[in-house]
Amino acid sequence: MSNELKRGLEGVLVTESELSHVDGDVGKLVYRGYDIEELARGASYEEVLHLLWYGSLPTRGELDSFRGELESERAVDDDVLSTVRALAEADERPMAALRTATSMLSAYDAGEGGTLEEGARITAKLPTILAAFERARQGESAVDPSPDLSHAGNFLYMLTGTEPDETSEETFDMALTLHADHGVNASTFTAMVIGSTMADVCSAVTGGVGALSGSLHGGANQDVMEMLHEIDASEKGPVEWVKDARANGRRIPGFGHRVYKVKDPRARILEEKLRDLADASGDATWLEYTTAIESHLESEGLFEKGIAPNVDFYSGSVYDAMGIPMDLYTPIFAMSRAGGWVAHVNEYQEDNRLIRPRARYVGAADAAFAQIDDR
Amino acid sequence: MSNELKRGLEGVLVTESELSHVDGDVGKLVYRGYDIEELARGASYEEVLHLLWYGSLPTRGELDSFRGELESERAVDDDVLSTVRALAEADERPMAALRTATSMLSAYDAGEGGTLEEGARITAKLPTILAAFERARQGESAVDPSPDLSHAGNFLYMLTGTEPDETSEETFDMALTLHADHGVNASTFTAMVIGSTMADVCSAVTGGVGALSGSLHGGANQDVMEMLHEIDASEKGPVEWVKDARANGRRIPGFGHRVYKVKDPRARILEEKLRDLADASGDATWLEYTTAIESHLESEGLFEKGIAPNVDFYSGSVYDAMGIPMDLYTPIFAMSRAGGWVAHVNEYQEDNRLIRPRARYVGAADAAFAQIDDR
Repeated sequence: MSNELKRGLEGVLVTESELSHVDGDVGKLVYRGYDIEELARGASYEEVLHLLWYGSLPTRGELDSFRGELESERAVDDDVLSTVRALAEADERPMAALRTATSMLSAYDAGEGGTLEEGARITAKLPTILAAFERARQGESAVDPSPDLSHAGNFLYMLTGTEPDETSEETFDMALTLHADHGVNASTFTAMVIGSTMADVCSAVTGGVGALSGSLHGGANQDVMEMLHEIDASEKGPVEWVKDARANGRRIPGFGHRVYKVKDPRARILEEKLRDLADASGDATWLEYTTAIESHLESEGLFEKGIAPNVDFYSGSVYDAMGIPMDLYTPIFAMSRAGGWVAHVNEYQEDNRLIRPRARYVGAADAAFAQIDDR
Repeated sequence: MSNELKRGLEGVLVTESELSHVDGDVGKLVYRGYDIEELARGASYEEVLHLLWYGSLPTRGELDSFRGELESERAVDDDVLSTVRALAEADERPMAALRTATSMLSAYDAGEGGTLEEGARITAKLPTILAAFERARQGESAVDPSPDLSHAGNFLYMLTGTEPDETSEETFDMALTLHADHGVNASTFTAMVIGSTMADVCSAVTGGVGALSGSLHGGANQDVMEMLHEIDASEKGPVEWVKDARANGRRIPGFGHRVYKVKDPRARILEEKLRDLADASGDATWLEYTTAIESHLESEGLFEKGIAPNVDFYSGSVYDAMGIPMDLYTPIFAMSRAGGWVAHVNEYQEDNRLIRPRARYVGAADAAFAQIDDR
């Protein structure tokens, strides 16, 4: 046993994985060897789930069968919907509501099959929970899931009550694919630690949602969107605003990443999608702001220091252009990343070892106990 | 970065901690330097919480104030009780019900104070949730918490509807103290990983409950109790039963521990309590079985191999003697360990660093993407 302290476990290799790899120096992300850009453009989120969970991109027949399995599992029990409504009435934060309702799913789960089967049933239901919660806080009743739409399209349908147009569905599907996995991040690791006790997938995914709710993990895309709104409400142009903010010591959200030292490949793809959405709507405000800020910070030499746009810099604008409220961005991230959580738990359990590190004890050696009245 | 794989993180030092230390070679457990035996015999669970959370055993005045704080936070919102009833009707497992209802607490939490304040509000409510769940599945309505009883006494009161006798309350309080902390075990580590994202305590404790629900973590005391019932229902005496079971390759639950190489100090204390309970009730069945099995396995040389009774070998019998159903043992463990989860999250956050290890990528290097109809 090494006596070296590994705070944050940075650089500690906890397992081997075939699932995803980030090459931060060149800005490359792969899922099982497939470049994220090709997957985002050429495959649906369901195909990506099949890749992560079963090891291969599905044939047409495999996809039909897999989609059928997910579609048949979208509905949630009425008791879960009642709790979701109670949470909305109590003004619960969306991530916390998603955590509670996800945890509740196990009560109505048949418990059949292994990790991947339970994982599929949960992954299928997360959009239903989140859409029902959003509608409940708008005072609207839940929309039943449609069995005819894709995972992405059905979520937008349940959220709004109308079937999404093709651009919206494609863009949202792409965003789900881009967020589906990203190595052993804190929420994925949480799910793995829980899974390593052989707890059920529901416990692991619930833990993942909890970890992702922390301000050091999910939530940066919401920060970016709040900045864009702040710029919009100010008298300044985006570059002037950013110059002043930096002069006042403010960090610009959506820039820099522990792993990426160049522009995040997911940001490149989402920027392009934001352009499509702006063309379709005729409103290019967020596109103009974000690209202007990016060009300015590049000219200031930040890229050379390894501080470049990450996925969060563009995803917020994309969701906003689709009319999605800001505080749903992180729950949507969770909805997508559930695919990665399930994949990593399943992979780790195949050669499982309970995850249990140690702490170096630096407390008192021998404390003399005294009864309460002698203290 | 070392290239060595650390599966299970065994021996990896993730942090420094002043909270608890296990010396497995001599069978010693301390909380902040105080021997567990002195704490179990001389201090209440509330005093131990004060020690773990605030760093010192309380004076009489400090304890009164701290107990008042916990007592005023015992009641849970009616919506939580409704969900607990729904979960009981759906025949949910107690650990899963506790996980869901714990997660739900955040919706009704004022969000005031820091980690310890939120932790105190949650810790105060866990017994209320668990007792309400047990009563709901017995078809009984929940008993309102009593502000006049201790944490231990109030739980037994809410469970049964009558105030517990002194021996039961003392014994249960002792069991809570014995389970309150135990270094960085898997559930505590789960809570720490979640807390390291700066997620709320509710997320961390919910994750801890999920991890503890796994068969490799909590649950061994239930296995012991099932064995004792199996022996009771058989024609054999306990030693004969154990001999036959081992001859058939069965592992005897409640023996052996990753850290303890001698008899777990917590087992010693609970064995004594089991003796008190047997004296009080006149029924010494479980005491006779467990001590006979322990003597037999010692004579077989298991102790010399470092396989000795752990806390789970005696706690089940103690709970059973108090009339507590078997599937509540692990939730009771969670109710107690919540004190340790909160303490470790609070300690880690004081000098926080996001916990994010890495995986060694062993997947495909460059996979050639093909559209679905070309696969």
